[in-house]
Amino acid sequence: MNKKVAVILAGCGVYDGSEIHEAVIALVSLDRGGAEVQCFAPDIPQMHVVNHLTGEVMEETRNVLVEAARIARGQIKPLTELKVEDFDALVLPGGFGAAKNLCDFATQGAEFQVRHDVLRAAQDFAEASKPVGLICISPVMAVKIYGEGVVCTLGDAGCDAAEAVRRLGAEVKGCAADQFVEDTERKLLTTPAYMVAQSLTEAATGIEKMIARLVALA
Amino acid sequence: MNKKVAVILAGCGVYDGSEIHEAVIALVSLDRGGAEVQCFAPDIPQMHVVNHLTGEVMEETRNVLVEAARIARGQIKPLTELKVEDFDALVLPGGFGAAKNLCDFATQGAEFQVRHDVLRAAQDFAEASKPVGLICISPVMAVKIYGEGVVCTLGDAGCDAAEAVRRLGAEVKGCAADQFVEDTERKLLTTPAYMVAQSLTEAATGIEKMIARLVALA
Repeated sequence: MNKKVAVILAGCGVYDGSEIHEAVIALVSLDRGGAEVQCFAPDIPQMHVVNHLTGEVMEETRNVLVEAARIARGQIKPLTELKVEDFDALVLPGGFGAAKNLCDFATQGAEFQVRHDVLRAAQDFAEASKPVGLICISPVMAVKIYGEGVVCTLGDAGCDAAEAVRRLGAEVKGCAADQFVEDTERKLLTTPAYMVAQSLTEAATGIEKMIARLVALA
Repeated sequence: MNKKVAVILAGCGVYDGSEIHEAVIALVSLDRGGAEVQCFAPDIPQMHVVNHLTGEVMEETRNVLVEAARIARGQIKPLTELKVEDFDALVLPGGFGAAKNLCDFATQGAEFQVRHDVLRAAQDFAEASKPVGLICISPVMAVKIYGEGVVCTLGDAGCDAAEAVRRLGAEVKGCAADQFVEDTERKLLTTPAYMVAQSLTEAATGIEKMIARLVALA
């Protein structure tokens, strides 16, 4: 039986959605690992739309699920349809969308909250002892999902995001972009990807290693 | 010296822009091959915007360069700035954007024209005997770039796109998604990717092999 893996996307583009390279590398790695993948995203407006050429906010509205469908080639479902019993593992790529559309870390820092439907889905996997892989900035949510003592990566050990979740009780480990960290007790896998990567190859290598371990654990 | 490779994108999303998986797999393969990559796209409105969840055309306007910047993480230039003397090779991923925004094959079929700036750029590489890699639907443009007798892939040997360019003088070869075809005389490399791929792994494998050969030839 192939392992079934749910992937939660947050839009399409590093500055307002899911980081596209990280998402695609995860999808390729899952497919190569023999996993069956189903993508999901919340059916909500994006926090904003960023012009990725200039970095400026654009005067328009886009929907997280509709834009995430670009990465998924249309094969995506609303997050409300994600049922933990249908899957063996969960993956969340990074990108600012994870910190803007799945939680509000980008604007609230250490005072942030995770969206109720994202938190519910991730906690269902945690409670079922099913492995979860968080990439790049997504591990800020780990302390909300698993509580104090959770072990994860973010950027450099002293970066703002790491300091913020450390204050909430997370144990943030320094980690090279081409490696990942495993919280064996919680079956949580994390890799810093573009939080620290100096090249696409570094980010890809870390994600590929993390996904291979995720599929093995599933 | 690292090889320098130009990549021309056509937006961001399979139905109205560059196919995201194909573009990212090409970028990862180029980086792993030690190539320095610069992305380009025409600074023009997209032919249209497609809702990738429903497949319906949306009532809005997006710019090809601005949307392609999502795949390139902002590191992209207008196509008018592409000078063949700065690069050793050229790559065009697929997606309907290649047939809608870089040429008008999607609407005109065998009567299609390639945009003047895309044609000029590609012909500059051809005339300089620098290798060109075309993925998925992009090889429809090969017969316009190289003229009659060019050897390339498209979908299945009998598909509409293959028949259309055959009438213009192209020699279309059947090719599995995990392989590529080389026109050795013209240094043209093509792979069918999602024109025939049944899985992401198949498309990725064909693109990776094609890019490895492209970097070797460059």
